[in-house]
Amino acid sequence: MKKIIVNTTNSKYPILIGKAHFFSLPQILDKHNLLKNIYVVIDKNVARFHIREIETVLSNTDTKVHFKVLPSGERTKSSIVLKKIYQELLNKKYGRDTTLIAIGGGVIGDIVGYVAATYMRGINLVHVPTTFLAMIDSSIGGKTGINFSGRKNIIGAFYQPDLVFTDTEFLSTLPKREFSASLGELLKYGLISTKAFYNLIYSNIEKIKLLDSEIINKIITECLTIKASVILRDEYEITGIRKILNLGHTFAHAIESDLGFQIKHGEAVTAGIICSLFLSNLKGFLSDDNLKDMMELASRIHLNRGIKELNNQRVYNNMFSDKKNVDSEVRFVILVNIGEIIVDIMADRDEIFYALNEMKNNFPV
Amino acid sequence: MKKIIVNTTNSKYPILIGKAHFFSLPQILDKHNLLKNIYVVIDKNVARFHIREIETVLSNTDTKVHFKVLPSGERTKSSIVLKKIYQELLNKKYGRDTTLIAIGGGVIGDIVGYVAATYMRGINLVHVPTTFLAMIDSSIGGKTGINFSGRKNIIGAFYQPDLVFTDTEFLSTLPKREFSASLGELLKYGLISTKAFYNLIYSNIEKIKLLDSEIINKIITECLTIKASVILRDEYEITGIRKILNLGHTFAHAIESDLGFQIKHGEAVTAGIICSLFLSNLKGFLSDDNLKDMMELASRIHLNRGIKELNNQRVYNNMFSDKKNVDSEVRFVILVNIGEIIVDIMADRDEIFYALNEMKNNFPV
Repeated sequence: MKKIIVNTTNSKYPILIGKAHFFSLPQILDKHNLLKNIYVVIDKNVARFHIREIETVLSNTDTKVHFKVLPSGERTKSSIVLKKIYQELLNKKYGRDTTLIAIGGGVIGDIVGYVAATYMRGINLVHVPTTFLAMIDSSIGGKTGINFSGRKNIIGAFYQPDLVFTDTEFLSTLPKREFSASLGELLKYGLISTKAFYNLIYSNIEKIKLLDSEIINKIITECLTIKASVILRDEYEITGIRKILNLGHTFAHAIESDLGFQIKHGEAVTAGIICSLFLSNLKGFLSDDNLKDMMELASRIHLNRGIKELNNQRVYNNMFSDKKNVDSEVRFVILVNIGEIIVDIMADRDEIFYALNEMKNNFPV
Repeated sequence: MKKIIVNTTNSKYPILIGKAHFFSLPQILDKHNLLKNIYVVIDKNVARFHIREIETVLSNTDTKVHFKVLPSGERTKSSIVLKKIYQELLNKKYGRDTTLIAIGGGVIGDIVGYVAATYMRGINLVHVPTTFLAMIDSSIGGKTGINFSGRKNIIGAFYQPDLVFTDTEFLSTLPKREFSASLGELLKYGLISTKAFYNLIYSNIEKIKLLDSEIINKIITECLTIKASVILRDEYEITGIRKILNLGHTFAHAIESDLGFQIKHGEAVTAGIICSLFLSNLKGFLSDDNLKDMMELASRIHLNRGIKELNNQRVYNNMFSDKKNVDSEVRFVILVNIGEIIVDIMADRDEIFYALNEMKNNFPV
């Protein structure tokens, strides 16, 4: 079992990474004083394969425990589901001394994290990420939220978990599409960190796709180390350092909105990153050679065919209603080279259309 | 104009206290980089007297500004009103770079503070407290929240404002009942701080009731200094130090619930403090002489007649559903003497009934 400590302004918390060690969760919770008044939310996809194991492991404790299964789609991140959880916590007399456990991907982590941030002004939170995307990215960093009025994560809070417990065994039952979708976010970590890590991904991409245990563990640990260091320097996205994590995300959010969330977040991120590479090249920051090399890696990542249907004008319009855009200016994270990033670069309509078109033309399927 | 700085884990912010200086708000906002994309929520009671002045002062700036008037009752702190505000912020294209200004009492401050904490994961927040209670207590400390399923402040977040701007001129149009209701909270500050401050209140209680400018200013400054020092030591109510601010509040919340929020929060606090004095005496912590002296001061504070109608058993039951009660134990803040407080003391049914009955028997009208 590997351990990474995340330091934030108010707290520090451990991320524990291992394989097939879910049985040890109660002891770990106990050690961190979190084994009390437990309310577990489980991703429906995960419950299908693991509900018996999860219930057995967590019911064999002396504390109160309740299980709730929720679908993993974006629709779950609604104010209606939010109210249902609040109401159930109240009905079952969960007080301030409650530990919420989110077992699932980003959607479950986001809404459960938001409940933890706002129920009784904050209760304990444990993430058990079960998707590759959640393991390498969304389970740490403290971003929580729900969708509202068709806008993603528009209501939310920064709220750090007390513990992240990662068991890569969950990946074995992850649908292939779900796994492929998360490789865009992995590509991002390769691009924003070091040549060594980028090359590690490049030379092992096929092994990664086959879920080779050793390389998967190495990669998760590395991604989390990168993210933890970024969060330490800019927890609330104020200084700008944290913005490097948004590489491709201005495109991605606008693409997701256009396709009505019919595609997976990770798929939109992959497309968004490809767009930002072409934009970086067009703007003269990223060399042709580097672009070519990066597109070679990107082309190994499966994209969603729906992306071909994107309407450039609508994507462009969506960018202006994205919450990250202050004063109606759309800003982009630009890549100069591996690990060399510039933030807050503006682009005009033509440049954005160019990037979208090139992404579609170089569409990896 | 007086200035107090509140230090918290992540930030520090000023409280500015003056009389009839509302006209200077835009310059102050500008100085603190808060004069942009302004959304103002105004207490209906305040709007009745001051809407023209508020609009004139805040519209004479170069920035976007929108005004919203909301009733000041507890019903405003609902998820329905919350959604309406979110929706209006979205419709009017307010982004991350928004400053919310709450002009009103505790209710307006609580819901606007909660919007600020959760809209786009946190936007700027300025409190302009207009009630005495908000001026001395609720506008600082970072507690925000709404009611849900009949439970007060059950959904909420800790979120500090960027600026508190207090203009005691607003007190001149505050309804008499509203002002009287806040004296219980003032009594609390007297009890938890120093003999000097307690005596200042004691010897000036009639002047205070007449809104004598000099003494009111002195008292607001002193209360805020006490609260700022408590918050500095226990921002998130973890170490227990902040619990001293809850003197009387376990009773008060249960009383409020029993009377269906028909009485003012401050009125319930006054009653709750009297209950806790009798409980402290019964438990042998507070001497008979001290109790008598404190009741002399308490009796100068007008209480709501509705309190006579309290049902002891229901109040007792409500305590067990209060969010501050962990593991079904009800804990009380107990007074030994001025400034000498013990927290987390348990009491049984008989003791609680005794305190409630004594409060009713020594009912100041």
